[in-house]
Amino acid sequence: MNAKTVEESKTTMTELVLPNDTNTLGNLMGGNLMKWMDIAGAICAARHSRTVVVTASVDNVSFEHPIRLGDVITLEARVTRAFNTSLEVFIEVFINDIVNDSLSKSNHAYFTFVALDLKTNKPTLVPPVDPLTEKEKMMFEGASRRREIRLVLAGRMKPSEAILVKEYLVSHQS
Amino acid sequence: MNAKTVEESKTTMTELVLPNDTNTLGNLMGGNLMKWMDIAGAICAARHSRTVVVTASVDNVSFEHPIRLGDVITLEARVTRAFNTSLEVFIEVFINDIVNDSLSKSNHAYFTFVALDLKTNKPTLVPPVDPLTEKEKMMFEGASRRREIRLVLAGRMKPSEAILVKEYLVSHQS
Amino acid sequence: MNAKTVEESKTTMTELVLPNDTNTLGNLMGGNLMKWMDIAGAICAARHSRTVVVTASVDNVSFEHPIRLGDVITLEARVTRAFNTSLEVFIEVFINDIVNDSLSKSNHAYFTFVALDLKTNKPTLVPPVDPLTEKEKMMFEGASRRREIRLVLAGRMKPSEAILVKEYLVSHQS
Amino acid sequence: MNAKTVEESKTTMTELVLPNDTNTLGNLMGGNLMKWMDIAGAICAARHSRTVVVTASVDNVSFEHPIRLGDVITLEARVTRAFNTSLEVFIEVFINDIVNDSLSKSNHAYFTFVALDLKTNKPTLVPPVDPLTEKEKMMFEGASRRREIRLVLAGRMKPSEAILVKEYLVSHQS
Amino acid sequence: MNAKTVEESKTTMTELVLPNDTNTLGNLMGGNLMKWMDIAGAICAARHSRTVVVTASVDNVSFEHPIRLGDVITLEARVTRAFNTSLEVFIEVFINDIVNDSLSKSNHAYFTFVALDLKTNKPTLVPPVDPLTEKEKMMFEGASRRREIRLVLAGRMKPSEAILVKEYLVSHQS
Amino acid sequence: MNAKTVEESKTTMTELVLPNDTNTLGNLMGGNLMKWMDIAGAICAARHSRTVVVTASVDNVSFEHPIRLGDVITLEARVTRAFNTSLEVFIEVFINDIVNDSLSKSNHAYFTFVALDLKTNKPTLVPPVDPLTEKEKMMFEGASRRREIRLVLAGRMKPSEAILVKEYLVSHQS
Repeated sequence: MNAKTVEESKTTMTELVLPNDTNTLGNLMGGNLMKWMDIAGAICAARHSRTVVVTASVDNVSFEHPIRLGDVITLEARVTRAFNTSLEVFIEVFINDIVNDSLSKSNHAYFTFVALDLKTNKPTLVPPVDPLTEKEKMMFEGASRRREIRLVLAGRMKPSEAILVKEYLVSHQS
Repeated sequence: MNAKTVEESKTTMTELVLPNDTNTLGNLMGGNLMKWMDIAGAICAARHSRTVVVTASVDNVSFEHPIRLGDVITLEARVTRAFNTSLEVFIEVFINDIVNDSLSKSNHAYFTFVALDLKTNKPTLVPPVDPLTEKEKMMFEGASRRREIRLVLAGRMKPSEAILVKEYLVSHQS
Repeated sequence: MNAKTVEESKTTMTELVLPNDTNTLGNLMGGNLMKWMDIAGAICAARHSRTVVVTASVDNVSFEHPIRLGDVITLEARVTRAFNTSLEVFIEVFINDIVNDSLSKSNHAYFTFVALDLKTNKPTLVPPVDPLTEKEKMMFEGASRRREIRLVLAGRMKPSEAILVKEYLVSHQS
Repeated sequence: MNAKTVEESKTTMTELVLPNDTNTLGNLMGGNLMKWMDIAGAICAARHSRTVVVTASVDNVSFEHPIRLGDVITLEARVTRAFNTSLEVFIEVFINDIVNDSLSKSNHAYFTFVALDLKTNKPTLVPPVDPLTEKEKMMFEGASRRREIRLVLAGRMKPSEAILVKEYLVSHQS
Repeated sequence: MNAKTVEESKTTMTELVLPNDTNTLGNLMGGNLMKWMDIAGAICAARHSRTVVVTASVDNVSFEHPIRLGDVITLEARVTRAFNTSLEVFIEVFINDIVNDSLSKSNHAYFTFVALDLKTNKPTLVPPVDPLTEKEKMMFEGASRRREIRLVLAGRMKPSEAILVKEYLVSHQS
Repeated sequence: MNAKTVEESKTTMTELVLPNDTNTLGNLMGGNLMKWMDIAGAICAARHSRTVVVTASVDNVSFEHPIRLGDVITLEARVTRAFNTSLEVFIEVFINDIVNDSLSKSNHAYFTFVALDLKTNKPTLVPPVDPLTEKEKMMFEGASRRREIRLVLAGRMKPSEAILVKEYLVSHQS
């Protein structure tokens, strides 16, 4: 299987915050943003793997800026690394307040998707990711560490085996 | 008012064709595609004019390729030219059949939007468009001719006054 | 195949403008109206042809009157003429401002639909239209001319071959 | 307040049964049909009373024929009689199986709506209904009897006071 | 077939009233509440019968308290009695005004569902209901009487044969 | 401010997986489940704090079992602990495959919500949580540790200050 670049499957999605997406204060409900992030990430992962994908996990997401009715949301999804039948996708969210012409980053998250074979419905191999830019390479490196954390949190790896996480914590300790 | 480039308000929207968007044959209904084109165009026009906009007209649209359940649709909207309080936006639609990894142009259309003042709700001036590339300049030129056709079709200009259309037809006659 | 009257497939659709159909000014978004027009037209065309239909094209549509949250929209769709496997449908939109008891025409458009065979998914013949009233006969006559324009716009007919359009322009010249 | 005819507010609504309206067998869910009946009835009542209305009650509804994905549903709503601030509306539902070209009555129901003043949000008087045809007159007469039944069922009238219902039962006894 | 208790299939559904569920006064539209009641009832009936169900009828429903945008609605559905292939379900609706911390009963209704065989799509037997509490037993007893009323209203039983209804009316006469 | 029990705001939500919630394989899309979890959690947090709330963060979520079209999803949300103006809510998801009568736990997650004052739109104090059962007390204790992790992940606490996390890791080391 030939490796594919990040650019080949990069997905940009734009959404307009409509009345039904908001709570009674006129703020976008967090669950709607997560739903859009999931769709953007799934399209990106499907483009990379050329088959249908299902969401396996979502890393910690925080919502720091209120998003208002009428705001325009841009989501950018990029694959970071493949692990046999699964793919990590990095999704960034930007808020565009059109009237004040301000563009600000809202938040980001890592989603993991599993590719399924269209006939058997079972997990199927995905092409490796070929990181080209500095940022893509950094994300590619970090993916193994984030995967360890997910396995520990899911109870499928002992904390004592999470070697990459430990190295990272030690090297970032002041 | 300073002119703005086409790139500043260019809008990319990605949509996944879900069950409710299709007819009983599993094809995307044309009206859903027009709705997405309208939203992509409105976001683009709002970004250029920094205020809310309403759709004024849609030029002839044709749908030549069936779009299937599960296909990914990418819409790209670009302003072509401003006329005082209105803006022409060019919207292209691409179909991405993920499984067969094919990307094909589905169709395109010109939408016109009117910018409204947020307080008075009346039409308000929009910044001129500054075309930079060859394609942007060609679109900018053609916009006046397309506007004449719209005015004639809406009964607000006599066919005999549509000077640009006539010149164009004469120069393209073999 | 026996011809069918216009009345047999005439379709009336009524929609209430709900919050999610509107922009931040409380005006119906144009794309939603086009979606409703497409559904009304498709039901009308399906009733005439007794099979499933897909939208082939939409002629120029203009939106002149703002439609407000809470307004009631009535759509009336009528077939005008059949061309082998396709049907032209004329759709009129009326706005009913309930509180002020005003009823006004909003706009109209011509949609073209192609009938598909339920088994092969290929275009299939539709019954001819039998126009009875003066208005129905006028629409029937105009349909061939509007079809020429569509073929020219789609690049499938040379402008020099659009004979009906030319005759019409000459006869309406002052 | 001048009486208004039934025809003045008669409302015809057409809906296409889409995937999300159906259960896993592909049948329209009953609750969706009731929602459409409520909207058709509310538009009809609002047109008659020229103000906003709220649903007060729905009489017994039965669903005897399965409605399938892709079927076209036509709803016809007509006011039958006004009672100070409330209106009874009769709603009939027809199923159009397009492929087999069959049109059959699905069911009907009586809905009652209360008209509200737009400023105070309190119940407000509605114009009387002027029944013209035989059927309209019969519906007008029956409305008082149906109202008695509703009041009894809601515990706001003693069964012994339901005089019209008793007269009706006696006269229809064999 | 073994009888099942009411508790085994009891269904609690919670819904938040969002903008699109309301009319222009910000009140929940009655049809949306009926749609939610239908879904809650269908899930409850499906759980009891372990197959897919369709709505057969809805008894008289009245809406006495306005429900506001932002209110939280709780629906509780319980089977009352089975009749061969059909099930009566009792659905209660409660309104939770979060800000004022008030919880009030909105209304209730009896829905009847028919269980369908997943292969033949024909009505299929459902397990009997085993009422345990006083309230469950009272509901179980009343179900036969309510069924008589439905059969009379649907024209499938002569009023003179509605024996249980008559006994009830006589015993409740003052 | 008086403490409130977990039971007072416990929220049960039931959802039926409809066609539009699924991907082309007929599996529920992960984003839809997160949206439902967010609504269940927000209702629970709003009930505890008696005001409107916004989602602040979502901890790692994993999706291990495919959820199918027609399955019934039950969500149970319970507050675990309050931190001045924010609340941690624990949300469990159960899948009910009705036909096979199987009930299985799908997954769970911790959401954090911030309560807002209805007039100023600023964060406002929420009542403390009074844990009663063993499980509630355990969740209450763990909440401070999970909060440390969130603050570290959000870059608002240095890893070296995450004292509770360290103690926990040491005590669970073999």
